[in-house]
Amino acid sequence: MPIITLTSDYGTVDHRVAAIKGNIIQLNPDARIIDITHEIGAYNLLQTAYIVRNAYVNFPKESIHIISVDSFFHKDRKNILVKADGHYFISADNGLLSLIFYDLKPEAIYEITINNRFDDDVKFASIDIYTPVAAHLSNGGLPELIGRKIKNYKEITFPKPYFNEAEKILIGEVMYIDNFGNCVTNISRNLFEKTVVNFENYEINIRNILLKNIHRKYTDIVTDWEKETEYHGKASAIFNEQDLLEISIYKGTNKNGANTLFGLKVGDKIYVQFE
Amino acid sequence: MPIITLTSDYGTVDHRVAAIKGNIIQLNPDARIIDITHEIGAYNLLQTAYIVRNAYVNFPKESIHIISVDSFFHKDRKNILVKADGHYFISADNGLLSLIFYDLKPEAIYEITINNRFDDDVKFASIDIYTPVAAHLSNGGLPELIGRKIKNYKEITFPKPYFNEAEKILIGEVMYIDNFGNCVTNISRNLFEKTVVNFENYEINIRNILLKNIHRKYTDIVTDWEKETEYHGKASAIFNEQDLLEISIYKGTNKNGANTLFGLKVGDKIYVQFE
Amino acid sequence: MPIITLTSDYGTVDHRVAAIKGNIIQLNPDARIIDITHEIGAYNLLQTAYIVRNAYVNFPKESIHIISVDSFFHKDRKNILVKADGHYFISADNGLLSLIFYDLKPEAIYEITINNRFDDDVKFASIDIYTPVAAHLSNGGLPELIGRKIKNYKEITFPKPYFNEAEKILIGEVMYIDNFGNCVTNISRNLFEKTVVNFENYEINIRNILLKNIHRKYTDIVTDWEKETEYHGKASAIFNEQDLLEISIYKGTNKNGANTLFGLKVGDKIYVQFE
Repeated sequence: MPIITLTSDYGTVDHRVAAIKGNIIQLNPDARIIDITHEIGAYNLLQTAYIVRNAYVNFPKESIHIISVDSFFHKDRKNILVKADGHYFISADNGLLSLIFYDLKPEAIYEITINNRFDDDVKFASIDIYTPVAAHLSNGGLPELIGRKIKNYKEITFPKPYFNEAEKILIGEVMYIDNFGNCVTNISRNLFEKTVVNFENYEINIRNILLKNIHRKYTDIVTDWEKETEYHGKASAIFNEQDLLEISIYKGTNKNGANTLFGLKVGDKIYVQFE
Repeated sequence: MPIITLTSDYGTVDHRVAAIKGNIIQLNPDARIIDITHEIGAYNLLQTAYIVRNAYVNFPKESIHIISVDSFFHKDRKNILVKADGHYFISADNGLLSLIFYDLKPEAIYEITINNRFDDDVKFASIDIYTPVAAHLSNGGLPELIGRKIKNYKEITFPKPYFNEAEKILIGEVMYIDNFGNCVTNISRNLFEKTVVNFENYEINIRNILLKNIHRKYTDIVTDWEKETEYHGKASAIFNEQDLLEISIYKGTNKNGANTLFGLKVGDKIYVQFE
Repeated sequence: MPIITLTSDYGTVDHRVAAIKGNIIQLNPDARIIDITHEIGAYNLLQTAYIVRNAYVNFPKESIHIISVDSFFHKDRKNILVKADGHYFISADNGLLSLIFYDLKPEAIYEITINNRFDDDVKFASIDIYTPVAAHLSNGGLPELIGRKIKNYKEITFPKPYFNEAEKILIGEVMYIDNFGNCVTNISRNLFEKTVVNFENYEINIRNILLKNIHRKYTDIVTDWEKETEYHGKASAIFNEQDLLEISIYKGTNKNGANTLFGLKVGDKIYVQFE
């Protein structure tokens, strides 16, 4: 039985998430439902994309991912079902899928036609549209029965890093801050490695702290584990599990992490100086 | 296998919710457990009633809803099992069920007699009383085996809207504020429609913002979807999915929603002026 | 099918928890996963121990508990699988298990040898190490196949209460504050009862409020249930479900509970004066 995951900005207090789950169970009593998160910042597509991209890959192929962020129904906006990387994604056509799959062509895009466009009486898209589609798929139904194939979805982009040749600076920015205050940037290991081969040295300058190494994991700065506590609070740069450059405070917390100590927030620039 | 839902004010940090789940699984390994919410404000029955009322209807009939809010055991207070609208509800006899079903007569009310009243050694009602009852029902057990039928439960009321004939004002109040700062009032569509037929016009006056329409959904104020961003932050009144009058800021958030912008909190009055 | 529980300090926003769940389902599609909590304070082993100790006992024997707190992989720190009290626990060898089982000898301790020590390329221990071990066990696999038996794990201790004979004072401290602001101390009922037999009287002095009784449950201070509201906000001492001395405000909340009213935080001393 395929998994149905839920992602939303509904929070965990209101009735909405439970309403969605109850509704899915009514439509398919055997459905297995897993929460990704319901604490997305209201309407925040960039945050949603980062979380869903890093979560979905851990689920089995054919999993069905309902994403209820910026999903108000309006007759002039499509709702879409996208098959990509072997998974199904259900969302409003708000550009979110193009953020998640900025580097991958979807296998198929469907405009959802049940309860859609021509019916202006949808009050809660998650239940009026998304859960019936998810239940249909989880019961083995074909996408073609609930939608019509289309060629494109709405495309939006997130800020991309760029290399300033004259100054020899790779300029990225913070695109996600995690529960420990770690600041994830948009600079990929791949881009970094393509750039660094042309130089002898590099340093990352963050609020006058210079980081001259990029580690492979959080504990790489701890060269002597017996004295591990001495490293608490030390800044480092790593390529994280997603192979993105991350600024981290060893054993930092969300009150005391890289975001707080360096005053970094989403959108702030990060500079890698080569020489 | 029936669903068991959980609602509480226990929060999501302490061991209590996991303890309840582990206990249910011990009693019925096949039980399917779904959280409604565990972030009810401590002892807040009005909030609980709003959330449970709007969540439970989405679950299949025969679902079992454990509600652990204001549920301290005391020998002089009953614990009850209520069948209503085809669902089972387990709670302390604190009036909560009368808030949820203010407009519906329960099919049956049982005073729970396992581990009850005559046993003053109950330390944690949710596990000592509620989970055994839920497991019993989920295994197909009869309510009569764990309780005795009674005629009434404790009745309490929430503030009702009223119409001031002399001033031609319908006066309601905010009874719930959701994750986006939307302010849900106790004025139902039904009451509004019965009132409005006698007048030509109406306006809702909130902190000197006049709303002269009540929409059917959040996006109805967006008359041109191409310019959707221009509507961000605009106030509107809608009848929500529960057909209750709601004051909303389009794309508002919990920091920037109707509650914050209008300074509204639960219990504040809302005035609809007719003429 | 055994239960797999999850405990972490990952929070409920990031992708990490969903990643773990998806990964478990890939490895064992029938695994049943229950969250204990993901809102442990970053790296807080004392808090983790209190919560896990009180949660796990409610689950069936043979349950598998993954605990991802202070679990960064480092080649010089073991990861361990511990069987204790009939349950399995998977954790870094950071001392946590010795806090949970300060009073009980584990049945077996294994150093996990899959993806371990000799492989310095583990980026996310929860998925690279813990979930494969949990899935292996949940599929009926033997511990010996994924680890080698060892004699000891890292031992750490939490502050213990002590009796000052000269002053006749039992001195404990707050070790946990729950969702309602209740302050749980490290003074057990057992220790208290062994001490109190030698005296006629005792009182607990907290910021000049004297408590002269220790109740068996929250509502024991309510001698007349008809006037229950008159007891709101009253301080009391109880032995809680864990038989630990707890300072409580009747119907207190996390904004208005014993922690706030008495200015208590974890680590603050609690004095029981005998005479």
